[in-house]
Amino acid sequence: MDLINLQKRLKKFKLDAFLVSRNNLFLGQDIRNDENIIMQLTGFTGSAGTLLITPQKNFLFVDGRYELQAPQQVDKSLIEVICTTKLSLAEWINQNLANKKIGYNPWCWSINDILKFSTPQMVPESEFLPYLLSTEPIHIFEQPLEYCGQRREEKITNISRQISDKNLDAYFISAADSVSWLLNLRSDALPDSPVLRALAVMDNERHIWVFADNINSKDLPFNLTVLPLHDLPNRLKKFKKKIIGLDFNTTAAAFFELAQDFHIKLENHPDFCQLQKSIKNACELDGIRKAHIRDGVAVCKFLYWFEHNRQGKTELDIVNKLHDFRAKQQNFVSESFETIAAYGSNGAIVHYSPTAKTNKKIKDGSFLLLDSGAQYLDGTTDITRTIAVGNITPEMSEDFTLVLKAHIHLSSAIFPNRTSGAKLDTLAREVMWQEGKNYNHGTGHGVGCFLNVHEGPQFISAACHTPFTAGQITSIEPGYYREGKYGIRIENLAEICPCGFQEFLCFKNLTLVPIDSRAINKYLMTAEEREWLNQYHREVLKQITPHLSDDEKHWLEEACAPL
Amino acid sequence: MDLINLQKRLKKFKLDAFLVSRNNLFLGQDIRNDENIIMQLTGFTGSAGTLLITPQKNFLFVDGRYELQAPQQVDKSLIEVICTTKLSLAEWINQNLANKKIGYNPWCWSINDILKFSTPQMVPESEFLPYLLSTEPIHIFEQPLEYCGQRREEKITNISRQISDKNLDAYFISAADSVSWLLNLRSDALPDSPVLRALAVMDNERHIWVFADNINSKDLPFNLTVLPLHDLPNRLKKFKKKIIGLDFNTTAAAFFELAQDFHIKLENHPDFCQLQKSIKNACELDGIRKAHIRDGVAVCKFLYWFEHNRQGKTELDIVNKLHDFRAKQQNFVSESFETIAAYGSNGAIVHYSPTAKTNKKIKDGSFLLLDSGAQYLDGTTDITRTIAVGNITPEMSEDFTLVLKAHIHLSSAIFPNRTSGAKLDTLAREVMWQEGKNYNHGTGHGVGCFLNVHEGPQFISAACHTPFTAGQITSIEPGYYREGKYGIRIENLAEICPCGFQEFLCFKNLTLVPIDSRAINKYLMTAEEREWLNQYHREVLKQITPHLSDDEKHWLEEACAPL
Repeated sequence: MDLINLQKRLKKFKLDAFLVSRNNLFLGQDIRNDENIIMQLTGFTGSAGTLLITPQKNFLFVDGRYELQAPQQVDKSLIEVICTTKLSLAEWINQNLANKKIGYNPWCWSINDILKFSTPQMVPESEFLPYLLSTEPIHIFEQPLEYCGQRREEKITNISRQISDKNLDAYFISAADSVSWLLNLRSDALPDSPVLRALAVMDNERHIWVFADNINSKDLPFNLTVLPLHDLPNRLKKFKKKIIGLDFNTTAAAFFELAQDFHIKLENHPDFCQLQKSIKNACELDGIRKAHIRDGVAVCKFLYWFEHNRQGKTELDIVNKLHDFRAKQQNFVSESFETIAAYGSNGAIVHYSPTAKTNKKIKDGSFLLLDSGAQYLDGTTDITRTIAVGNITPEMSEDFTLVLKAHIHLSSAIFPNRTSGAKLDTLAREVMWQEGKNYNHGTGHGVGCFLNVHEGPQFISAACHTPFTAGQITSIEPGYYREGKYGIRIENLAEICPCGFQEFLCFKNLTLVPIDSRAINKYLMTAEEREWLNQYHREVLKQITPHLSDDEKHWLEEACAPL
Repeated sequence: MDLINLQKRLKKFKLDAFLVSRNNLFLGQDIRNDENIIMQLTGFTGSAGTLLITPQKNFLFVDGRYELQAPQQVDKSLIEVICTTKLSLAEWINQNLANKKIGYNPWCWSINDILKFSTPQMVPESEFLPYLLSTEPIHIFEQPLEYCGQRREEKITNISRQISDKNLDAYFISAADSVSWLLNLRSDALPDSPVLRALAVMDNERHIWVFADNINSKDLPFNLTVLPLHDLPNRLKKFKKKIIGLDFNTTAAAFFELAQDFHIKLENHPDFCQLQKSIKNACELDGIRKAHIRDGVAVCKFLYWFEHNRQGKTELDIVNKLHDFRAKQQNFVSESFETIAAYGSNGAIVHYSPTAKTNKKIKDGSFLLLDSGAQYLDGTTDITRTIAVGNITPEMSEDFTLVLKAHIHLSSAIFPNRTSGAKLDTLAREVMWQEGKNYNHGTGHGVGCFLNVHEGPQFISAACHTPFTAGQITSIEPGYYREGKYGIRIENLAEICPCGFQEFLCFKNLTLVPIDSRAINKYLMTAEEREWLNQYHREVLKQITPHLSDDEKHWLEEACAPL
């Protein structure tokens, strides 16, 4: 099915337009490449985007991260790219297609997604363009107690307490990573995330029904019946006239209709698992710290290798080499997302990842932006380092130092318990604002424990008013980008901890890889900022050195030398 | 009518409770003391608060500013004070009085106030306790072009354009300060604000109907018919089946019912005047700057006097003396709010003002917190200075310096055009967060031009997501309070200006009075912070010295000596 045929098809379905989401029915989870309908229709490979098909023209809506990349990847004669930083998708549609009949697949959009539009115009239509879900058999496995730290029975008890507190007959868990967390189950369905793609319903007597496809029940590590996804409606029918709680942000709009057909009352309650999942227990934190030491060792070994072998190498060589170093580490399972190795102007394309077509050779005189992470059985990592290759200009060094100052300013902040992500976002940006600079993406995201590398509810972003709580994990990743020249981003993961002052919180760093001092203009840094960096490098040395060869040690000692 | 009788009266009206607002029908405007129904019923003198009458018990809801003051003023056997910092009024009522019948006077609550409650329980009842509106004759006068800088005809053209853009038949201007601004009219109805308390309806053919009581039409500076408030319903009737726009935040809930009775469609549109009023024109800015020089002269003359005459003086002496100095200034009309002169522990009571009962003598060894302002024909001022009386402890000096650092940090910030007040609020607080400290009030408010000293739409506060724009005026007033000991607040007014960087804004200071260097621990300040203060004091010297006597000059030179 190609775009032109879909444009023709609109007439047959009596639609003025059709809105294509990148999701299948597992909203908010990664998808496999062979499930990426947007990529197949447009060639756009970004991790977020929406396609609007109209008879005359097609529109691809992307956020600031993909403002530069999308136009390079799509056929401009067929598709106009629209960046949603100024105007949201809903605003654009409400303004430009008011009172038009716009079709959408109700399995691929959340209830809240659809409620954002002036509703009369939105027409659920699952036949026009069905979602893609791989049929490959999936291997399920258990996340052992030594890593997850809490029995599923305890977690279930906690959820069932919320079900009765809210006087619900059942709760529908529509987020696959919540189901995976609740049942301490993982799978190999996705390349970069061990999430088990399943939905679950739990009633007020602790009965759980799990729904997933392509699973071999003999595979199940414990006694649990997994029903095929198409059984879900029949199961829901049994709750006729009952009240089911679910999260309008993560539940497909299709359930809204099902509930109406079955006379089920739906109540919107934020995912009962999400907050508890985001607050890591002692055992998870211990594993996450260990995983970060191993990941730090792998990345340091890579950086040593890169220092001595970069001549003639390409971005893709780097992706592969970094993978090899990580793959040697204990408990390594996979990358946690597609590695971003972006040299020079490619670095200005936020969340670019190299392809045979874009693959650049590493030369002297610019930055290599390296954003990568791994899934270890005991924890998930995500780190960005920007490496000065050869000599760089004073301007590059000033930009790099400014991003570092922003990173340090937020990393060393102390803030009241339950401060929102929007406020923390300001703490990173203000440093750049003073120079009239800014960046077009959020400053941080939650990270799962051997689960999704992006998880909520807390994000460090202007739009996020969710309060932060001790025990959560966040990335801290300010950046700066000069279109056509280079990109800079410095990202560590940190744990949210209580600090000396009552009712106040601070960040405790997890990531252990040196920050490239050669790119720093130390005269732009305050004494406190230099001390933060020196202290950080002392910690890297202490944790990583024991796992390196002598040559690597010498290199690391230099890389961590006090400023 | 006293509380006990009102409690009995509930039965007769078949109500479980009655919610008393401090407002009369001019929502969001100041009221006269003889109109303050909350004060008359409870003795509480604060500028904000809500009384809930129930058969068994009465509750007074106040915000953080009045957490300490309210319990001191009310009869605890009759009234329990509840601070709304943790739980909002609406949340408290929805939790504690779900499904109870709660009466309210629909003229004293905005439509949005009422929509916050789970509506079934709220019963409009204007008879139970009518609002108070003074019957004293009001003198209206015109704000001449030399001060307001824009003819009313231009303003009206701008509003009528908005009426047609939004396809409305009329717009109802429910904010009296908007009516005053639109018509370039002022009055003497209130002691501290020259606002003309009037409502207005404007149709799509530029006809305007103004409604106000106690006005002598002969008084009117130009040909304008002012109808009595009780004519408003008859006038609205004429818009039967039509669409009227109005601001749900500032329009009394009573209009919601009137509209239903008259089959008028109401559309919620933010006050058409508010944004334009908040962005001062060149002429207004010029007047505001001049007013701040005069106000600075008055306050500096007071500070010189205080330095030499404070022995044996009380808070009330200070209020009166400060008034005398201001009253001598050209274009002075009145204070812009009741002067706060709070010595020692009284300073910890945010927004305290002295009464015969609380009046403290000024002694050595603590802080005098002085928050005051004036209405000049060409501008409105608002300034807080905290003065060290005699020797203070190192702890007091550290607290003072921390508040000053917070003030400087925000004052010298550069931020993107359209940054929200919530983000600016964070920039002031973060400095205090680093020491585990905070304050329980907003950081800044808009200020009118010879109008209300508090005006929207922009506020520097955690809850305000309104973007800031060049030409607006804001206060910058972080503080710190030690209950039972002292309070510290440092407040300047500033203009929002474009800065060197495209699309970025900064603050330009307006207030010209020295900050008490004797209270500063300069070793806690960075070189940049010291330079900010020295630069500020150089400007104060330059602007104020020409208007002082020789003795006062010498004093000011010392007060402004470089740190």
